[in-house]
Amino acid sequence: MAPNHPLGKDLLSAADLSAPDLIDVMARSRRMLQADGQGGTTSNSRKIVANLFFQRSTRTKLGFEVAALRLGHRSIDAYDPDRNRVGSSNGDNFPDHIRTIAQLADLLVIRHSEEGKCQEVARLAPVPVINGGNGSDEHPTQALIDLFCMLEMKGSIDNLSLAISCDSRARYAYSLLLLLKHMPPRRLTFCVDPEVHFSEKTQSALDVLADLGTQISIVHDLEECLDHDVLNIQTQDLTSKVKSTLDGGDLPSYAEKDPFVITADKILKAKSDIIILNPLPRQGELDSSCDSLPNARYFEQVKLSTYVRMAVLERMLSGIPWTGAAALARA
Amino acid sequence: MAPNHPLGKDLLSAADLSAPDLIDVMARSRRMLQADGQGGTTSNSRKIVANLFFQRSTRTKLGFEVAALRLGHRSIDAYDPDRNRVGSSNGDNFPDHIRTIAQLADLLVIRHSEEGKCQEVARLAPVPVINGGNGSDEHPTQALIDLFCMLEMKGSIDNLSLAISCDSRARYAYSLLLLLKHMPPRRLTFCVDPEVHFSEKTQSALDVLADLGTQISIVHDLEECLDHDVLNIQTQDLTSKVKSTLDGGDLPSYAEKDPFVITADKILKAKSDIIILNPLPRQGELDSSCDSLPNARYFEQVKLSTYVRMAVLERMLSGIPWTGAAALARA
Amino acid sequence: MAPNHPLGKDLLSAADLSAPDLIDVMARSRRMLQADGQGGTTSNSRKIVANLFFQRSTRTKLGFEVAALRLGHRSIDAYDPDRNRVGSSNGDNFPDHIRTIAQLADLLVIRHSEEGKCQEVARLAPVPVINGGNGSDEHPTQALIDLFCMLEMKGSIDNLSLAISCDSRARYAYSLLLLLKHMPPRRLTFCVDPEVHFSEKTQSALDVLADLGTQISIVHDLEECLDHDVLNIQTQDLTSKVKSTLDGGDLPSYAEKDPFVITADKILKAKSDIIILNPLPRQGELDSSCDSLPNARYFEQVKLSTYVRMAVLERMLSGIPWTGAAALARA
Repeated sequence: MAPNHPLGKDLLSAADLSAPDLIDVMARSRRMLQADGQGGTTSNSRKIVANLFFQRSTRTKLGFEVAALRLGHRSIDAYDPDRNRVGSSNGDNFPDHIRTIAQLADLLVIRHSEEGKCQEVARLAPVPVINGGNGSDEHPTQALIDLFCMLEMKGSIDNLSLAISCDSRARYAYSLLLLLKHMPPRRLTFCVDPEVHFSEKTQSALDVLADLGTQISIVHDLEECLDHDVLNIQTQDLTSKVKSTLDGGDLPSYAEKDPFVITADKILKAKSDIIILNPLPRQGELDSSCDSLPNARYFEQVKLSTYVRMAVLERMLSGIPWTGAAALARA
Repeated sequence: MAPNHPLGKDLLSAADLSAPDLIDVMARSRRMLQADGQGGTTSNSRKIVANLFFQRSTRTKLGFEVAALRLGHRSIDAYDPDRNRVGSSNGDNFPDHIRTIAQLADLLVIRHSEEGKCQEVARLAPVPVINGGNGSDEHPTQALIDLFCMLEMKGSIDNLSLAISCDSRARYAYSLLLLLKHMPPRRLTFCVDPEVHFSEKTQSALDVLADLGTQISIVHDLEECLDHDVLNIQTQDLTSKVKSTLDGGDLPSYAEKDPFVITADKILKAKSDIIILNPLPRQGELDSSCDSLPNARYFEQVKLSTYVRMAVLERMLSGIPWTGAAALARA
Repeated sequence: MAPNHPLGKDLLSAADLSAPDLIDVMARSRRMLQADGQGGTTSNSRKIVANLFFQRSTRTKLGFEVAALRLGHRSIDAYDPDRNRVGSSNGDNFPDHIRTIAQLADLLVIRHSEEGKCQEVARLAPVPVINGGNGSDEHPTQALIDLFCMLEMKGSIDNLSLAISCDSRARYAYSLLLLLKHMPPRRLTFCVDPEVHFSEKTQSALDVLADLGTQISIVHDLEECLDHDVLNIQTQDLTSKVKSTLDGGDLPSYAEKDPFVITADKILKAKSDIIILNPLPRQGELDSSCDSLPNARYFEQVKLSTYVRMAVLERMLSGIPWTGAAALARA
């Protein structure tokens, strides 16, 4: 952090949020929901939110664009799609590009495949920076969205049983663990391939939750957690099981047999009223047979995401700092 | 149509408009024209219009963007230009992409080369959908623009003689026929290649107009209809005649000889005051020698298009349903 | 110029500005700076600014987009990025594309590699046109930005010593010379490769300044002008000296030895308090060692650029004509 940057200006990690910060974001999100995305700022305080998506995105990129617009602000796409235009001269190097955008805009949202890039951007930019996904590290705003959905759909977190089915690339899941320490659920079950080993930081986040009283379990088949209240599922890498089925054999019924694919049949057989969330896109872990069940809430999740992004933008564009441990450590 | 979608929410076909709907859109368009594109909504009711152009477009895409902005609303480009970005992960499948955008935006405008895609989008999206051109089927908003131009430039339709010169891909022309049954002209002449056969639905639309008293003719040379009030011309496929001339022979004068190309010389020779409209882009059917004549009204047509698109957006974003036969049949 | 186009509608050359025009733009820029980019127009007079960048751009393109948005107006990207989309039909030819955009938008900003294209666009469009860089000819708004920076950072121009280090492609430098005749500096030193020959028009602009009392010098090493107040540097073509060093030899220290590269060591050795401006991107002429020195003002220059672009847009969208010699000559 450059010495004269305001403390707590950036949202790079879910650990940038203290418990009061989290409560504030949830309250703002609910206010946005109740106003149905209207309200926002008067025309003379409009701000520019710059999207810098070096990795592909649909929901996060368009979501922040829409959130800015619904707040009465403006959004620009500051990623350079002309990089490969024939006959173009060379453009800026990465730091100069960031320093330039930071002079034109009031807030940057960045997604990059390299984990450290969002920290570099935060150091280069005097304006607030939001991490919209950095490699396989974190995706703090997705975690805020997931938490808000659980609060809206189930009322509270403390008595909740939550299942997370994901792979080792699930950056949203680690961010969610960091947030849950401020609102620990009653029970948390991870459904992962036996080959997946938790990273040290994930294990540490789980230990914190265990210390707070959450009952932690690990299973290797989704059907073992269909009695939970919420299933948060996303598998970007197809599991070796799915892959071998796809390569080899019984294609039409692989989904039913794969322990990491949720299907309508599994839900109906278990008579489960589990709520299914998915940050999307899905790669096969969420069978389309689920879409017509009342359990399917992942498109409602997209709807609610706008209110959370509006809440985060409103707070950060007002200059309110984050006060979590990570934010303070960057000082 | 999903059972809980509002009836008449979408504008997919010109047949979605009843006569009162058409009169309403024309009246709104004129109000927009008189306010010169200003006015529109107050800042607290701003909406998001999402453009989903799977096929190339200049006027329709930028036109709806500009219309939304002039109304005080916002526009986002929700087509995914990053589909082929190197190193990107897979994105959403088509239905998930539509369902996602429909949660972020308040109205979708779609163009797709497959005729049935706009119906699929309308079924998937709880919000209103506008067909911005579906294959060679329909282009209802272009037809509304053409009708508004004729009304503004000639005062009324009922005493009008209208010539349409097009090929079988002219989706705007079929949409225009569907609208004209609510405002039948005195005379309608189609100028087409003898090889072109009308589709069953086009023939049916012509029969309806004939029953309403319109004098229908078919000719194979533009010079036979230069005594008409209006020429609406667009040929996306060069005719075999033009092609053979281009391949073979007398290049500089092919335009004069081609019966489906309008030139200044033809207009001046006929002392015609026919008004020329063209939805653009032109492929050779409209010689640039026409551009400086008072007959050329196709760029004024672009100017007027904004008011019509504003009218359509204003109506649909206010939740006013379409009440034409096609809209009711989708219930 | 078409006969019925308003006189002085376009900003194509720095010579379109008379002395009062320049004073007006500087005053408006300062007002925008003092309001910190806020204020602007009421919601009912919103206008559409269309960007048409046929050549790559970061600052100019995003800068005009941001300036329009901060004024309460809107911006659209009217360059067609879909030109090469597989399966697309042919689009408009260049003149039709411009005529179309000019009917949808209220002002066009164009960048093109061909010098004459901005004049063609200005003739085709009834609305105001800004030259955002035409080949190696001119970049008038960049020159306005540079002048505003010098005024803000040094208070006035008339007692200033200004060094310009550039190559023959530096379109901003020629535009700046044209503006300086209205505010001649005390001293102007060009630092160029001995192989560079001034064009006739550049020599003519220098002669005008000399007649107005500016002391003109030419040097071939940056270290000879480190006693000046301001260094405006940009070299898009690496000099033959730099290139031969890069190809051949002592890579790490080439910057120190190259007479056209500014480094922190050179500045510190000369104990210089010269202000460094650069329109960016840099290609190697501005060593990153300079970035942490107080002399480095090129990112502050980006910040100030927004106010100047707001000033130019505000003036032109209000319909105030340019009254310089070039503007009058186009009548």
